[in-house]
Amino acid sequence: MGTITAPWKQLLLNALESNSHLKHSSYFQLATVGCNGRPSNRTLVFRGFQESSDKFHINTDNRTHKIEELKHCPFAEICWYFTDSWEQFRISGRVDVIDGSNPDNFKLQQREKSWFASSVKSRLQYLGPNPGLPRISEHQSEEEVRLDPSIGPVAAFCLLVLDPDQVDYLNLKNNERVKFISTLDMNGVKNWTSERINP
Amino acid sequence: MGTITAPWKQLLLNALESNSHLKHSSYFQLATVGCNGRPSNRTLVFRGFQESSDKFHINTDNRTHKIEELKHCPFAEICWYFTDSWEQFRISGRVDVIDGSNPDNFKLQQREKSWFASSVKSRLQYLGPNPGLPRISEHQSEEEVRLDPSIGPVAAFCLLVLDPDQVDYLNLKNNERVKFISTLDMNGVKNWTSERINP
Repeated sequence: MGTITAPWKQLLLNALESNSHLKHSSYFQLATVGCNGRPSNRTLVFRGFQESSDKFHINTDNRTHKIEELKHCPFAEICWYFTDSWEQFRISGRVDVIDGSNPDNFKLQQREKSWFASSVKSRLQYLGPNPGLPRISEHQSEEEVRLDPSIGPVAAFCLLVLDPDQVDYLNLKNNERVKFISTLDMNGVKNWTSERINP
Repeated sequence: MGTITAPWKQLLLNALESNSHLKHSSYFQLATVGCNGRPSNRTLVFRGFQESSDKFHINTDNRTHKIEELKHCPFAEICWYFTDSWEQFRISGRVDVIDGSNPDNFKLQQREKSWFASSVKSRLQYLGPNPGLPRISEHQSEEEVRLDPSIGPVAAFCLLVLDPDQVDYLNLKNNERVKFISTLDMNGVKNWTSERINP
């Protein structure tokens, strides 16, 4: 279960490979629906796939708006444009928000792994002031905060796991577009079908 | 009215200038809310500001899902990441969908201007098969379709005008973040306030 590779995954791995010389190739835009019903959109960093699956890992701060948005409406769409190969992936799915209070041990382990996989510098931002709130101190810098590298995830650290159910692939070089749609069979296994559509 | 420059506009013009050597610097991601309540997200091309205003122009095909989505929920958020200067603009606002049936003459003129401002090659795509529908012909190419360059906008051509009411600016090089919020005064004139917030 979950070990069958999704047919779009190889396309995405190829795009990551052919754009890997660009720092921003691991950045994508994640759209969610705000509590007021209006869309939100921000750039986030791809942290890899969950082992033997097609689920996307994203690290984020528990104190940002997207957390309450995802609790209100758990659906999101990634738009990932690769600037060198001119490929776009629109990846739609449900997002699981995993913070330190999660009752599932496997999920807590995933969160801990993701914490230790990120650099100490990026861990430091979770100790900073509340993102999005008015800036009070002019002089506080990240460097003033110390963090023991052996310490596990802090309270603000949150792992998002996006489980895709639809992928729209567009290649602007050859003008090809393919839509991948998943269905769950009676055993809860995801089955993907694909169709070429007009660009 | 509308001639007072929004305070974030110069920041955006500077970003466009400093990233202008990159073809993709005019591409951004537009999030909308689908009719099923789930978010949608896709890459689009910035076609400039409406004269003496802070409204964004986007060209699109009337036959795409985003049209019905915007008729259902007219709000959208642009996420625009500049890969060379490491700046992000999140621009939230209301979108006016202008197709050939619009009763407003000024809007129809804007649509016509935007049609003639785009290349003949990009106009041709509006004569192609319905975007998103299954690809029937393997061999049809854009080159087979002819288009008289003096002919005005075809039925499928649609101008989107996004009128922003909130802009969130983030600079990843100096870690500065500023939130711009607009309010309408008694005469319907937009007034912008800004505040530095934590990144």
